[in-house]
Amino acid sequence: MSRTSQEIRLAARPQGRPDASTWELATTEVAEPGPGEFLVQLQQISLDPAMRGWLNDVRSYLPPVQIGAVMRAFGAGTVVASQHDDFAVGDVVSGTFGVREYAISDGKGVARLDLDVAPMSTWLGALGMPGMTAWFGLEDVGRAQPGDTVLVSAAAGAVGSTVAQLAKAKGCRVIGVAGGPDKVAWLRDLGLDEVIDRREGDLLRQVRRAAPDGVDVYFDNVGGELLDAALANLAHGARIAICGAISTYNDETLAEGPRRYMALLVFRASMQGFVVMDYEDRYGEAIAGISELIGDGRFVATETILEGGVPAFPDALLGLFDGVNTGKLLLAI
Amino acid sequence: MSRTSQEIRLAARPQGRPDASTWELATTEVAEPGPGEFLVQLQQISLDPAMRGWLNDVRSYLPPVQIGAVMRAFGAGTVVASQHDDFAVGDVVSGTFGVREYAISDGKGVARLDLDVAPMSTWLGALGMPGMTAWFGLEDVGRAQPGDTVLVSAAAGAVGSTVAQLAKAKGCRVIGVAGGPDKVAWLRDLGLDEVIDRREGDLLRQVRRAAPDGVDVYFDNVGGELLDAALANLAHGARIAICGAISTYNDETLAEGPRRYMALLVFRASMQGFVVMDYEDRYGEAIAGISELIGDGRFVATETILEGGVPAFPDALLGLFDGVNTGKLLLAI
Repeated sequence: MSRTSQEIRLAARPQGRPDASTWELATTEVAEPGPGEFLVQLQQISLDPAMRGWLNDVRSYLPPVQIGAVMRAFGAGTVVASQHDDFAVGDVVSGTFGVREYAISDGKGVARLDLDVAPMSTWLGALGMPGMTAWFGLEDVGRAQPGDTVLVSAAAGAVGSTVAQLAKAKGCRVIGVAGGPDKVAWLRDLGLDEVIDRREGDLLRQVRRAAPDGVDVYFDNVGGELLDAALANLAHGARIAICGAISTYNDETLAEGPRRYMALLVFRASMQGFVVMDYEDRYGEAIAGISELIGDGRFVATETILEGGVPAFPDALLGLFDGVNTGKLLLAI
Repeated sequence: MSRTSQEIRLAARPQGRPDASTWELATTEVAEPGPGEFLVQLQQISLDPAMRGWLNDVRSYLPPVQIGAVMRAFGAGTVVASQHDDFAVGDVVSGTFGVREYAISDGKGVARLDLDVAPMSTWLGALGMPGMTAWFGLEDVGRAQPGDTVLVSAAAGAVGSTVAQLAKAKGCRVIGVAGGPDKVAWLRDLGLDEVIDRREGDLLRQVRRAAPDGVDVYFDNVGGELLDAALANLAHGARIAICGAISTYNDETLAEGPRRYMALLVFRASMQGFVVMDYEDRYGEAIAGISELIGDGRFVATETILEGGVPAFPDALLGLFDGVNTGKLLLAI
């Protein structure tokens, strides 16, 4: 049996926004899995803001993708051949398989997905990395309590829409920030208390109006102007969970920092960074919690699935930065 | 008995660095204390970086000094007349008496000083606000542990020199940053493990060289470039205690923020602001701890005392920003 697999490789490190020169589309012969290995046919690939960081040759929480290597990506698919004791043909799995059609795996970091609980796309969204990020960022870093005012950036995105709904379920007053009237309307339908359209500008005043008593927890996915607007409107003892800074990821130089960081002193507030992988031992707790809310109908898992397969990856990634998605953004393979 | 008192009033809010137009020197008749009041003759006035912030008409942890009002200042002196049950003539006291020769007080926020424990100047330094700031910033905010690498900015200043010595006494590896060879030499004599001269520039590389395994606790009094240099060189799980940002206090516009704040994510680090007044209930704990170290000879309390009395206040304050002091800066009245 001979198969070929399309894959996207990193051709050159981008300056600023990735373009055609960043990527190379290649086709390889698919090898058979060796002892202790299995072969996955990918069906969905996850588009994540963190991907932009992996393209830079800098020290971070994961090593950069090497030039010529297959682009790192999380995804899900079905086992189609196996010499591994724990994974059988037909198993549906998720893992860091890369942007490709077929991947060989030794099982490390691979999870078996129970499609009776939720569809594959939700296992990559609310029950996957974005969901875990939302849960531990809100619970452990933000230490949200019932009654707290929680401000969520990129609230229509994969992580943000999960944070917003978890905070509502917890009894918080939730303010979401998103771009454009469609997302604003969608977030209002989700039951958020206030929704700010960032395209209307003057975020500092918009946040002040939405949170007259100050923000207790700010879940920051975007950085930039919104982080400063949040800092200017903190409540006493506020917590800022730093999850990402998507507004700056394509900047060619290091973006400006939060000018109003001294508000941390005025409001006795803290700003803490976190990386979801550190909570791997506790994913079960978050999956149980979010599954229960989905089962109760108190949580709407939402995904935007793009078509086009592996060759569509470069455009899909740009779409993520342009905010084409509502909820989790996936690419169907 | 009729006495006069010189005082410094805020004449106009400064743009940037205060100058002659900022202040007005006035002389008033000293009133006799009424029932429940006492009169203090001031002997030393404390010069503090926070004073610059009190001149701005912005919401902060204390209200701004009003135009025409006596400049707020902490100081110490002797009670010379009293109708207060708890304070007698001859008592030596400290409190927020303002920049003046004589002050009437009702005793709120006033402490009696035991000159057998330490001289008045030390009660305004290592055993006063700067000492309390150092203690709680290092213990509670920085959560310094023996063996930690502790980076201290403005290490020859009132707070910094206390932080550095407390951290050494705790068994930390201490790196101090100061401006100029005299201060560097003084800090080496105090027993710091590494001393960086900020005037030699390239702070990012200097911090990297001094802390090859990363900084566990950064005690930030200065902001600016050094905060970014610290962020770039954090250890996993590092804590940044935000105490001040003296390098930016005279800027006419809001200074740039820390560009490298996303290092908080990479290093799972936190940055927390604090204000010493919040720890007022626990000052006794810090005073006991620092007094013991002074008694043991493990702590050198240092003050720089300027002459010239009340009229010298404007220049003394500028001297603080120019770093004329080693240890606590005081003005003798």
